Amino acid sequence: MRLSIFIFDGLTTLDAIGGYEVLSRIPGMEVEFFAQTKSLIAADTRRLGLLAWKGFADITSTDILYVPGGPGAFALEQDNTVLEKIRALDASSTWTVGICNGVGLLAAAGLLNGRKATTNYFYRERLAARGADVVPTRYQRSDKYVTGAGVSASIDTALFLAREIAGEQVAKTLQLGIEYYPDPPFPERTPADAPVLSKQLVSQFERMGAPAQLKQIAPFKELAALVR
Amino acid sequence: MRLSIFIFDGLTTLDAIGGYEVLSRIPGMEVEFFAQTKSLIAADTRRLGLLAWKGFADITSTDILYVPGGPGAFALEQDNTVLEKIRALDASSTWTVGICNGVGLLAAAGLLNGRKATTNYFYRERLAARGADVVPTRYQRSDKYVTGAGVSASIDTALFLAREIAGEQVAKTLQLGIEYYPDPPFPERTPADAPVLSKQLVSQFERMGAPAQLKQIAPFKELAALVR
Repeated sequence: MRLSIFIFDGLTTLDAIGGYEVLSRIPGMEVEFFAQTKSLIAADTRRLGLLAWKGFADITSTDILYVPGGPGAFALEQDNTVLEKIRALDASSTWTVGICNGVGLLAAAGLLNGRKATTNYFYRERLAARGADVVPTRYQRSDKYVTGAGVSASIDTALFLAREIAGEQVAKTLQLGIEYYPDPPFPERTPADAPVLSKQLVSQFERMGAPAQLKQIAPFKELAALVR
Repeated sequence: MRLSIFIFDGLTTLDAIGGYEVLSRIPGMEVEFFAQTKSLIAADTRRLGLLAWKGFADITSTDILYVPGGPGAFALEQDNTVLEKIRALDASSTWTVGICNGVGLLAAAGLLNGRKATTNYFYRERLAARGADVVPTRYQRSDKYVTGAGVSASIDTALFLAREIAGEQVAKTLQLGIEYYPDPPFPERTPADAPVLSKQLVSQFERMGAPAQLKQIAPFKELAALVR
């Protein structure tokens, strides 16, 4: 089985890595990180570079299409090359996964019309406006579409999907492998419980925007110069 | 304040990324990923490349030294160049962080003698043999040394440290930003609760070993060829 993780300029890394760390360890799983072109991809913080070792041209089908989110995803909602590729890979996939506002890319590609789907706390209205039936769950399955809430929910989502694919014994083994027995230092149980000021600040960040703006705050050139 | 994350051949990515995703967003934080040399670093799965955009020669001090674990860390316990660099950076740090068996590198560098420290479930005896006072907690502080349990515990550990550095309001905002309100699909609360077969399988993986062996199962050349 093959897992294809789409990465892009301005992604939030944990959206991708939380799921990768679980799903890549399912026995027999092949994994590839791909972007529009084979290149080094700068994360939203501009301090981390991930290698996309395949480009759109190198991948025409997959078993699991995995789309993370991040500030860079907003601009891609208008990018027909990206939406076409998502539709094309979805046409071959057994599972299609979206995390955080990466779920918005699935919706923009027209894949979630009328489907139950979750996303991050601040993106719910926007996802609903794109035709999804938004539910406030940590992860959500609708047929082959599996969606996750914000960023770290990629881990819960992937453990759920691992059980669907490989059964509970395997999924619990993966859980042990990454020791996902969380014990956060604070009592809040959902985003709705967070302090009001925290909600205001994160809401601002979520709207921060497009990759072009992100690049201005970045040592991106130093990173990118290392890849030819 | 500057966060310096050490990455190395065969690291477990979530060990690094879980903490990075929290700590890098503390206001005013500068972040750098470094390795022995400026290079592309292959994760333990051999399917993911991370860019170390600084080498040992480029960094002589830091505020937060962050050492993740992974199968590749075992060999580094015998690598004097690495242990010397850890000692040198620790000499300047305000905080020194170890995650998973990355805690073993701090211990091998002689930094945890008699100190309370945690690590992953399968590494506890080995860490104790290196002189640490091992506790089975999710994260642990001993003066400036902050240690975390396995892999995903990097998130809990970083939220704890974020509160120590920047206060509860900031830490809760970071928690909301990554929506760390976990809801795993299984009821187990600690590694000890995991199925016996899972423990056997993960224990085997933990012992899998050195980077040289890992490279044999990897498309590493294809990845590395992209960086000059």
